[in-house]
Amino acid sequence: MASSLNLSKAFLAQPPYKRCSLRPADQHVSFTPRRDLPSLSGLRVTRRGICVRASAETEVDKSVNTIRFLAIDAVEKAKSGHPGLPMGCAPMGHILFDEVMKYNPKNPYWFNRDRFILSAGHGCMLHYALLHLAGYDSVKEQDLMNFRQWGSRTPGHPENFETPGVEVTTGPLGQGIANAVGLALAEKHLAARFNKPHFDIVDHYTYAILGDGCQMEGIANEACSLAGHWGLGKLIAFYDDNHISIDGDTEIAFTENVETRFQGLGWHVICVKNGNTGYDEIRAAIKEAKTVKDKPTLIKITTTIGFGSPNKANSYSVHGSALGEKEVDATRKNLGWSYGPFHVPEDVKSHWSRHIPEGAALEAEWNAQFADYAKKYPQEAAELKSIVSVNFPTGWETSLPTYTPESPADATRNLSQQCLNALAKVLPGFLGGSADLASSNMTLLKMFGDFQKDAPEGRNLRFGVREHSMGAICNGITCHSPGLIPYCATFFVFTDYMRAAIRLSALSQAGVIYVMTHDSIGLGEDGPTHQPIEHLASFRAMPNILMLRPADGTETAGAYKVAVENRKRPSILALSRQKLPHLPGTSVEGVEKGGYVISDNSAGNRPDVILMGTGSELEIAAKAGEKLREEGRAVRVVSLVSWELFDEQSEEYKESVLPSGVSARVSIEAGSTFGWEKMVGSKGKAIGVDSFGASAPADVLYKKFGLTVDAVVAAAKDLC
Amino acid sequence: MASSLNLSKAFLAQPPYKRCSLRPADQHVSFTPRRDLPSLSGLRVTRRGICVRASAETEVDKSVNTIRFLAIDAVEKAKSGHPGLPMGCAPMGHILFDEVMKYNPKNPYWFNRDRFILSAGHGCMLHYALLHLAGYDSVKEQDLMNFRQWGSRTPGHPENFETPGVEVTTGPLGQGIANAVGLALAEKHLAARFNKPHFDIVDHYTYAILGDGCQMEGIANEACSLAGHWGLGKLIAFYDDNHISIDGDTEIAFTENVETRFQGLGWHVICVKNGNTGYDEIRAAIKEAKTVKDKPTLIKITTTIGFGSPNKANSYSVHGSALGEKEVDATRKNLGWSYGPFHVPEDVKSHWSRHIPEGAALEAEWNAQFADYAKKYPQEAAELKSIVSVNFPTGWETSLPTYTPESPADATRNLSQQCLNALAKVLPGFLGGSADLASSNMTLLKMFGDFQKDAPEGRNLRFGVREHSMGAICNGITCHSPGLIPYCATFFVFTDYMRAAIRLSALSQAGVIYVMTHDSIGLGEDGPTHQPIEHLASFRAMPNILMLRPADGTETAGAYKVAVENRKRPSILALSRQKLPHLPGTSVEGVEKGGYVISDNSAGNRPDVILMGTGSELEIAAKAGEKLREEGRAVRVVSLVSWELFDEQSEEYKESVLPSGVSARVSIEAGSTFGWEKMVGSKGKAIGVDSFGASAPADVLYKKFGLTVDAVVAAAKDLC
Repeated sequence: MASSLNLSKAFLAQPPYKRCSLRPADQHVSFTPRRDLPSLSGLRVTRRGICVRASAETEVDKSVNTIRFLAIDAVEKAKSGHPGLPMGCAPMGHILFDEVMKYNPKNPYWFNRDRFILSAGHGCMLHYALLHLAGYDSVKEQDLMNFRQWGSRTPGHPENFETPGVEVTTGPLGQGIANAVGLALAEKHLAARFNKPHFDIVDHYTYAILGDGCQMEGIANEACSLAGHWGLGKLIAFYDDNHISIDGDTEIAFTENVETRFQGLGWHVICVKNGNTGYDEIRAAIKEAKTVKDKPTLIKITTTIGFGSPNKANSYSVHGSALGEKEVDATRKNLGWSYGPFHVPEDVKSHWSRHIPEGAALEAEWNAQFADYAKKYPQEAAELKSIVSVNFPTGWETSLPTYTPESPADATRNLSQQCLNALAKVLPGFLGGSADLASSNMTLLKMFGDFQKDAPEGRNLRFGVREHSMGAICNGITCHSPGLIPYCATFFVFTDYMRAAIRLSALSQAGVIYVMTHDSIGLGEDGPTHQPIEHLASFRAMPNILMLRPADGTETAGAYKVAVENRKRPSILALSRQKLPHLPGTSVEGVEKGGYVISDNSAGNRPDVILMGTGSELEIAAKAGEKLREEGRAVRVVSLVSWELFDEQSEEYKESVLPSGVSARVSIEAGSTFGWEKMVGSKGKAIGVDSFGASAPADVLYKKFGLTVDAVVAAAKDLC
Repeated sequence: MASSLNLSKAFLAQPPYKRCSLRPADQHVSFTPRRDLPSLSGLRVTRRGICVRASAETEVDKSVNTIRFLAIDAVEKAKSGHPGLPMGCAPMGHILFDEVMKYNPKNPYWFNRDRFILSAGHGCMLHYALLHLAGYDSVKEQDLMNFRQWGSRTPGHPENFETPGVEVTTGPLGQGIANAVGLALAEKHLAARFNKPHFDIVDHYTYAILGDGCQMEGIANEACSLAGHWGLGKLIAFYDDNHISIDGDTEIAFTENVETRFQGLGWHVICVKNGNTGYDEIRAAIKEAKTVKDKPTLIKITTTIGFGSPNKANSYSVHGSALGEKEVDATRKNLGWSYGPFHVPEDVKSHWSRHIPEGAALEAEWNAQFADYAKKYPQEAAELKSIVSVNFPTGWETSLPTYTPESPADATRNLSQQCLNALAKVLPGFLGGSADLASSNMTLLKMFGDFQKDAPEGRNLRFGVREHSMGAICNGITCHSPGLIPYCATFFVFTDYMRAAIRLSALSQAGVIYVMTHDSIGLGEDGPTHQPIEHLASFRAMPNILMLRPADGTETAGAYKVAVENRKRPSILALSRQKLPHLPGTSVEGVEKGGYVISDNSAGNRPDVILMGTGSELEIAAKAGEKLREEGRAVRVVSLVSWELFDEQSEEYKESVLPSGVSARVSIEAGSTFGWEKMVGSKGKAIGVDSFGASAPADVLYKKFGLTVDAVVAAAKDLC
């Protein structure tokens, strides 16, 4: 039995697994090298991965080379992809998946699994190869052969919604490490809330591999600063330090001292000098990382990109292109690999096959432990179950506050806080916070403390001024467990800072709730740097996201109902800084339909004019409607709180709200009019703001920018 | 004469000023403290800024307190703003503007001035107070009194387009320090190109103040990593380390070791422990910073936010709200300030008044030196002049390549590279680069080297994978000199990473050129994480930016012509990865109009159907047009390369392209259809992609997503 397997047992020795023998020796499949198989015997490996002489054949080498060639062959067949990273990172990948991590290949969603994130997502063939070897049904040989093809489960970057076993969607650099921080936060938080003496029911590590590109991205520094602050000791990140990025040697743009920076960020830093063949060095680093409980660990591991390719290793040419037939052959020769494309040698298969029974045993063990836990701690078990399985308590939505037109006028950001606090009481997985604007965004959960290094049970997250990583961390939190519902907050205009993370919420079906206050020029004096204009339009154009702009308390509660229910689609709530009245006619049911009539004095679905508004301007539309009705007009006032939801309604319903026969339509919204032609039609009039805002009190701005009752009335009269 | 003034002379001692006496003693206005004025005598100042005893009255104290009270009074009058930072940073502000920096108040645009950036833009009253004291015409007493009011020159955050003397627009945190890196880069680059023995014609420092919020933002880390890499020795940044952010003590979210991190980033770090009253410590730090030539310097300076306010200093309540009448009074008492609101004591006025003649002398000196330089180096002087004054060589646009329909098909990213290289030859201020995608974005200038620490004359900028700071650095470069034209590049989808910087280009009228390749699902196998969908719409909705999507070589050249000419408006060029044919009918003049007819077989401005497209889909529209014409239809094909430019045309012109009588309209674009109702009208049909993309070869994706000639033909037939 190879020493690596003994080591792997040692690494697994984390309570509660210390006391059970999940990997008994007799479960291991024998792994005897066969003489007729290619090996690294007699070869020494240079920095460029050229094998000139070696020390000893090992079974690990063979598994590692299997990973390398699966990546090489898949990229070659697709004539597209990134072979360099998998070739360089195969050793750490092998050690993680074969020796260190606990998972159940037949249930990729087992709650207590270790999480693995490939932040350098372009190297996804590494992950696919590992999932394949480990026995995941999501990546069969055929899937590897369909790499990057239409309809395959092996897309060009890892996508959680396509490939079970992939935890999050990566590719845009830096996102993955920030997601990993979210996953590790979720583990630490849930462990603090649910673990009991002798019941470490929440207990797993989060591993990530990030490259030079991830390291350069600002989001990674933000997230890693938070990870250090929060003391996420079970986060272990491998920095694949291969000195090559797309433009060539990292010397041309990246000469900072990463170790020093991470020490400054409060991380434990370990250097592995030989990531190519220094298996024991890698193992020792992971072991050391696990002994450090109060800090996350960065393992800076020097590898050769494209290791094994005699002419392309250690160069940018192996980063993002297929090696080419000739170089594939040369690499096969160089690494002594005589197998055909996509071939997994029998002994490698056989070696990895133990992960299926072992994974099943791990899950069974956990299930048994959880059953005992549920007996002893039924309340906690029920809460945890609702987090693991997104099984919300019946009637949770009745906790949302209700309002009448007589309720005191208030800013929707304040009404939002009432909803947040109501939801947190009934939804155990509800947690979140703001990017250093809690008192402006009104996002504090009053009955809970802060999540902090020494108080991880707290449910108020303090992100600091780090919008981008805030979004990505929330993506990680949702992806940890389907019943975790993270919300995060900043000023609406600063969605610009976190747009890449928001898009990944939408793409990866992560139901994060974005609480975005100060949603228009109505914020006043802070001026145009802080005033969103194009933001509503920009999110209405984004797929799979709900852009909600509630007008009052009832609509705010409705928006939260929709947001909580949409676990596979993120929601953005645009909320006012300024006070707004509670309007007659608004309703939760209306919000659920996205667009609906709040008042109408017409008959036969044939008003003289339709006035539309959203958020803070619905009041203006309503007042203009009153004025026009006083003058004898038949006026319908429509709230268009969410265009996406309205689009999803039946044609019949849409016709009942916006009858095609009525072309006299006026909309008012304190933002860009871009896109409003869809609602007002070619003959209608959209009132909005198509320039940048200005610094002045809000009421002055509304007048100067023409967002007034009179303007709506005048436009309506022009049209009917 | 105060020792500070002697010190200031010492600080100014940079060649060529060493040899001339720009600040002769007799130019200094006498600054004798008067007995009847309030002072800090007999007071000692505690951490919370409470004055309990002091050592000696100084004239500096008085100037510093003037700054503090101008900020306090302006915020109080506006009942809105951020007094905390100006109160804490007044000492460093005073020393910079009164003792260290060289500038000419009567010509805020003097080329060789030192640049000052308030990255923590919310503290703008600090900057306004300093500009006021220094004698800038942009900030008179009335302007201070109109702080944050409609039409004032003192908006809620610093705006370069409103207030001469403000170099860049800040407020969104982290942007300013990245802008400062751009300014310092511009100085280092221009100095390397234009300075000659005895002619340090380009020679200034860039100073910045950033706070905890800036430090937390990822963009700041990106930019500072680059500043360290580039060895920007003349960048001196003050980190206002006041331990307070909006949510309270920074302990709750920001406990990293900033000094260590900056050492890792390759900066020289100096700590000033007493930023409140330790004037000499501040002076010594600046002096030391100037001796370090090969690294940027971070001066970590501990201050008390809201210094002087007895009940609010050192707390978040002084960060972003007016002190309130009572606390203003208490602060006046505490600091011994008996003047009324907005009062600048005569001796303070008189002290600062020397900056007007001194500034004029500095500029005159430089002008004289430049005249000598121009005699000796006429070629260089002419080039520098064109950079200083945006005076492009006549006929520069003729350098742009031309194409015919017979030119070989090519990707617009490749055609873009031909344009970039052509422009760089004729425009001395043209420089730029990519975020580690030069070989994919095709942005290398072949005749120039890389801008590097030891090769700052290079015009290829290597930003690494740092999109956000790339945009902000380019904003800084444009704001340095109007004839500097920076371009920067990444994949179009990654505008999401840099959107806040792009928006600031638009807002601050910075004519950056954004070269955005891989502009649709046409990029193929990289999949939905890399495929823009909503991005065209999202920028069409943004004010003051040109979104250009050229279809072939001619339109690409046209797009560059427009982009170069628009020095007050940034441009985004969306460019294809895939090859495209050169289409009959495209023209540079057409691009300048934003939308135009490329082919038409109708008569009397009355085609049966109008087909519209942009970029790579214009070819599909053109082919569909041919097919329909073969079937006897009168078809017009329109390129809508830039909606903003088209919007600006006369109604007559627009009617000539899109006659209102023709409702049969079909558009095709490989992106969200959001907003296309504007062009196709209520009865037309927009063909596009309203879901996320997928990983597969480009031609497969075009078919699967229905972006085909047949789809256009079918839609057209449905309509006419």
